[in-house]
Amino acid sequence: MSSPSNAGLEERFRLAQVVAKEAGDLALHYFNERDKLVIETKRDPQDVVSIADREVEELIRSRFADAFSGDGVLGEEYGLQGGTSGFTWVVDPIDGTSPFVNGMPNWCVSIGLLYAGSPVVGVIYAPCFGETYAAMAGAGASLNGKPLRLAADKTIRNAVTGIGANSHVTPAFVAKMVESLLEAGGNFIRNGSGALMLAYVAAGRLVGYYEPYMHAWDCLAGYCLVKEAGGWYHPFPTEGERLTKGSPVIAGGPGAHDDLMRIAGVDATTAQHA
Amino acid sequence: MSSPSNAGLEERFRLAQVVAKEAGDLALHYFNERDKLVIETKRDPQDVVSIADREVEELIRSRFADAFSGDGVLGEEYGLQGGTSGFTWVVDPIDGTSPFVNGMPNWCVSIGLLYAGSPVVGVIYAPCFGETYAAMAGAGASLNGKPLRLAADKTIRNAVTGIGANSHVTPAFVAKMVESLLEAGGNFIRNGSGALMLAYVAAGRLVGYYEPYMHAWDCLAGYCLVKEAGGWYHPFPTEGERLTKGSPVIAGGPGAHDDLMRIAGVDATTAQHA
Repeated sequence: MSSPSNAGLEERFRLAQVVAKEAGDLALHYFNERDKLVIETKRDPQDVVSIADREVEELIRSRFADAFSGDGVLGEEYGLQGGTSGFTWVVDPIDGTSPFVNGMPNWCVSIGLLYAGSPVVGVIYAPCFGETYAAMAGAGASLNGKPLRLAADKTIRNAVTGIGANSHVTPAFVAKMVESLLEAGGNFIRNGSGALMLAYVAAGRLVGYYEPYMHAWDCLAGYCLVKEAGGWYHPFPTEGERLTKGSPVIAGGPGAHDDLMRIAGVDATTAQHA
Repeated sequence: MSSPSNAGLEERFRLAQVVAKEAGDLALHYFNERDKLVIETKRDPQDVVSIADREVEELIRSRFADAFSGDGVLGEEYGLQGGTSGFTWVVDPIDGTSPFVNGMPNWCVSIGLLYAGSPVVGVIYAPCFGETYAAMAGAGASLNGKPLRLAADKTIRNAVTGIGANSHVTPAFVAKMVESLLEAGGNFIRNGSGALMLAYVAAGRLVGYYEPYMHAWDCLAGYCLVKEAGGWYHPFPTEGERLTKGSPVIAGGPGAHDDLMRIAGVDATTAQHA
């Protein structure tokens, strides 16, 4: 890929961290007052949204528009707005809305930045935990400033794998992926936020993550984090309209690659290694 | 059942909260130093234990022995020690050892108290969240002192269900329960700590919990919490040796009863209502 200028990239990386914090603190305000939130449903009764998601995305969009008016933005709630700079922000204002509206702490703000088809910045802020995960292409990944580097000896058999699913996938398909993972000696958690589980992969807390259908705003920040921590990911299609559609998401540490690719039924040669 | 004297019960309830806090803070010390922990495996490579589990259980046992030497104690790491008072403490020093050793915050100290076959005290302390869930038979349940009362309008279709599993159950069985839950319009999380998910049921964050094979130390504190918050549970067998064996665990809010019993394949009339 062509390289973004380091100056432009670093400025955006710094801004992403400031904006994620501001956005997360606004979301946390709504979380603490969630008894008053009006919850609406989207695709099905389990697919929920509230004014918090929308206001947090509006805040994020306005901050990026103010600083870099030529950048594109894709957000979960307001869709894709094209840009001219070659950079596209990919934003989930609250990933894990279901935990959020039900009072569980497993939700986060996820901000990714695409350049020439690859995620070059990933910032995930989990306000209930006071944790900021941050990565920039070529500069490594960190958690609250502490560098993250994945161990090579973790596998799906001696560590935990994160999974996710939604109504885009049949119950039988989800059941099959759970069965395959357990049959292979794996163990799973699902905390309700795919972005946060990808951040946990980067932090070595999970050895991998697999969800059969996810959107770019759920995964691109996490993908950058995992790769910069020394892991790998299965590329997400970013060309044109594909960027706004769903696709399988698979990522992990070095020792989880072959097992996860086999469980997901994906050609193992297509993963994007660090 | 015959009633414990209120004086003896209330003293034990107060002590359980003090001991849970002390035990959780000791566990948190080990959690923050977990890079130095030696991890051993028990039943399979996913069933882990460390010195933290053992030392925390030893602490809890010694506190109860000092205060109520006639009480029995059943703990995950050191088994059953019979008593003479009619009270039996049922203790999981660290529920969620897998999240614990992998650096995830979803673990807790779980302290239940049995009398005449029923859980009459339940205290669950989650140190990473600073949350203490506490219940005593007839006195209600609370989270950090705030009373918990379950809403009647939550169902598995408009709220989230917690699930758990381990290698006592086949992958095919786990897959089938996931499929049944999703087919019924449900959605699941699994945060790695069954006791904490039962506490989340009591707090209304989850509408129910189902795990096909669990031990008494994983569920009895949570059962007391759920019932005292206005929910129900499927009785756990406590007679003689049965207390130390595994059994299905099912609990929830009022609106989740029939669906969860059907998904678990259990006769709906056997649940213990509040």
